[in-house]
Amino acid sequence: MLSGTFSVGGRDGYEPKLTAVATGSHIDAIPYSGKYDGVVGVLGAIEAINALKRSGFKPKRSLEIILFTSEEPTRFGISCLGSRLLAGSEALAEALKATVDGQNISFLEAARSAGYARDEDDLSRVFLKNDSYSAFVELHIEQAPILEEEGISIGVVTNIAAPASIKVDFEGNGGHAGGVLMPDRNDAGLAAAELMLAIEKHATESGSLDTVGTVGILELYPGAINSIPSKAHLEIDVRDIEESFRNAVINKIHKAAKSIAKKRKVTLSEFKIINQDPPAHSNGSVIKAVVDASDELNLTYKYMISRAYHDSLFMARIAPMGMIFIPCYKGYSHKPEEYASPQDLENGVKVLALTLAKLSLR
Amino acid sequence: MLSGTFSVGGRDGYEPKLTAVATGSHIDAIPYSGKYDGVVGVLGAIEAINALKRSGFKPKRSLEIILFTSEEPTRFGISCLGSRLLAGSEALAEALKATVDGQNISFLEAARSAGYARDEDDLSRVFLKNDSYSAFVELHIEQAPILEEEGISIGVVTNIAAPASIKVDFEGNGGHAGGVLMPDRNDAGLAAAELMLAIEKHATESGSLDTVGTVGILELYPGAINSIPSKAHLEIDVRDIEESFRNAVINKIHKAAKSIAKKRKVTLSEFKIINQDPPAHSNGSVIKAVVDASDELNLTYKYMISRAYHDSLFMARIAPMGMIFIPCYKGYSHKPEEYASPQDLENGVKVLALTLAKLSLR
Repeated sequence: MLSGTFSVGGRDGYEPKLTAVATGSHIDAIPYSGKYDGVVGVLGAIEAINALKRSGFKPKRSLEIILFTSEEPTRFGISCLGSRLLAGSEALAEALKATVDGQNISFLEAARSAGYARDEDDLSRVFLKNDSYSAFVELHIEQAPILEEEGISIGVVTNIAAPASIKVDFEGNGGHAGGVLMPDRNDAGLAAAELMLAIEKHATESGSLDTVGTVGILELYPGAINSIPSKAHLEIDVRDIEESFRNAVINKIHKAAKSIAKKRKVTLSEFKIINQDPPAHSNGSVIKAVVDASDELNLTYKYMISRAYHDSLFMARIAPMGMIFIPCYKGYSHKPEEYASPQDLENGVKVLALTLAKLSLR
Repeated sequence: MLSGTFSVGGRDGYEPKLTAVATGSHIDAIPYSGKYDGVVGVLGAIEAINALKRSGFKPKRSLEIILFTSEEPTRFGISCLGSRLLAGSEALAEALKATVDGQNISFLEAARSAGYARDEDDLSRVFLKNDSYSAFVELHIEQAPILEEEGISIGVVTNIAAPASIKVDFEGNGGHAGGVLMPDRNDAGLAAAELMLAIEKHATESGSLDTVGTVGILELYPGAINSIPSKAHLEIDVRDIEESFRNAVINKIHKAAKSIAKKRKVTLSEFKIINQDPPAHSNGSVIKAVVDASDELNLTYKYMISRAYHDSLFMARIAPMGMIFIPCYKGYSHKPEEYASPQDLENGVKVLALTLAKLSLR
């Protein structure tokens, strides 16, 4: 559909006028990543539908696979680009007209060079109507260690946490590392270091165990061993299942950034909340289909919260949504050690296939 | 002479058997730098010798200009490559055989592609003997605000501070920023943030006002907003006029790094002192020549310490050394705002010319 978000296969139902059931995930990854995050939900979807075909199952509603583009924010700094747009984000469609990557290539230019050339650049053409799918279900590795630790095969996701991301810049005078004495400095890097520790403190002490705060990106300029940093750029991720806890922590981080800037005589030249999405709730009938499928396959399952967010967070805005988690090694994700065993992959694909079958007959 | 370190001009003396007087500096720069650091001592040297020619002055000893390669550590991570080698660093000549830049291009390959091709790669061929020059003098911007604040034209450098640089790596488990709860993390980026603040504390509380400690480089891996840093790489610069103060601070930084690693359950996978050079002292007769020149030109001057280090730090190992500082705007250096006024440049070049004249007649 949109610049890499497209249907990669599926199965026509015998009542083609009914809205389809969709499944899918993403295959893009962050740098130095693993090979299961997202990919399991794409290859797993293809295999689930093939298995249904082989079994001779006839779907009533068509089954459709979606491969979302740019779930990770690697290139354009915005996560879940494809699913956000499909879900009808007017703000994103507008913002993307002026968005460029690290090499100054615009989003629209990149989309065109990937073969999505159009005469007009109106991204709202990809928005889906609210009744486009009767259900959306996504298979994914857990990206946390709970299922593995408890020896449970299937996670039935009830909620997806509310994520937010923030960009912060501190600026100081910089100078030569040998030339400026310690009392005369206003080091933007040290302001960033203090803010990192403040974020850890506020996330840890939020009052909710589910609050997490992370600085995954910190860039110092000019970035030379013999130069006092004149600028520090941080990108911060804050999440909770409850928006109110998350937003309270964001406010504390903003206060901390202002007070650190004042104390260290640096300028807080940017504090920009890039996105601040509400949490999503899985749909009751999709949850029931996953649970029934697990039961029929004699697989243990557990209701759980997804603290990582997924394309499902946005698909929930336009379709009844559910997610199926499988265990992954030590909960590792976003690094090469990421791993899911063949048995767990098979279990997940079986549950997905049976869930799709159930949803297609409703 | 060596891969960019070469003589760019000069003036033959009428007693060609006497060792020459040398002057010079560097023209390489860090990223996002200014255009005066180093350059003033190269263009200024050319102009000083041209001025002596125009005045009809006949040098007894030849005057020679040296343009040093890679004073800044930008490409190969080692500062003052050219002058260190000229001064006969066996350890560096050996280490450079295995040194590569960020694009994995070896130092020797880079030297050859810059036109310094040789059959053999024995870098010790560029070592200078101790009596190669009768004196070496370098003109440079102060890179600190003292001369400007006090309204003084010329800084006469008596000592160059002892610099050290250290590379540190912390490694943790990383993971997805949404998937791992705060108590379960071992975030390498937060270990780095704590070490940055510890370095500031130990440099500030060393007991010597002259101690400075700087983290100019910090890299987080994988470097994605939704990933807990699994690795943090820091490059640290520590200096003092007294080696003992500096080394005491380095020991405290090492202890802090070990204790932070233990507390945060990350691995301190590298703590490597890249260089730990002794301070240099200017030569009495070169100092006198600079002072006499300033007096004769009716320019105010002040004895001062260079906290930044220069090619002169290494040239002092093989020749009587001196440095001439001129004021620079607010002490700014290593950033685009770096500036020295035409009047101060003229003063510096006049003092350099007269100093060279005096030294050439001795």
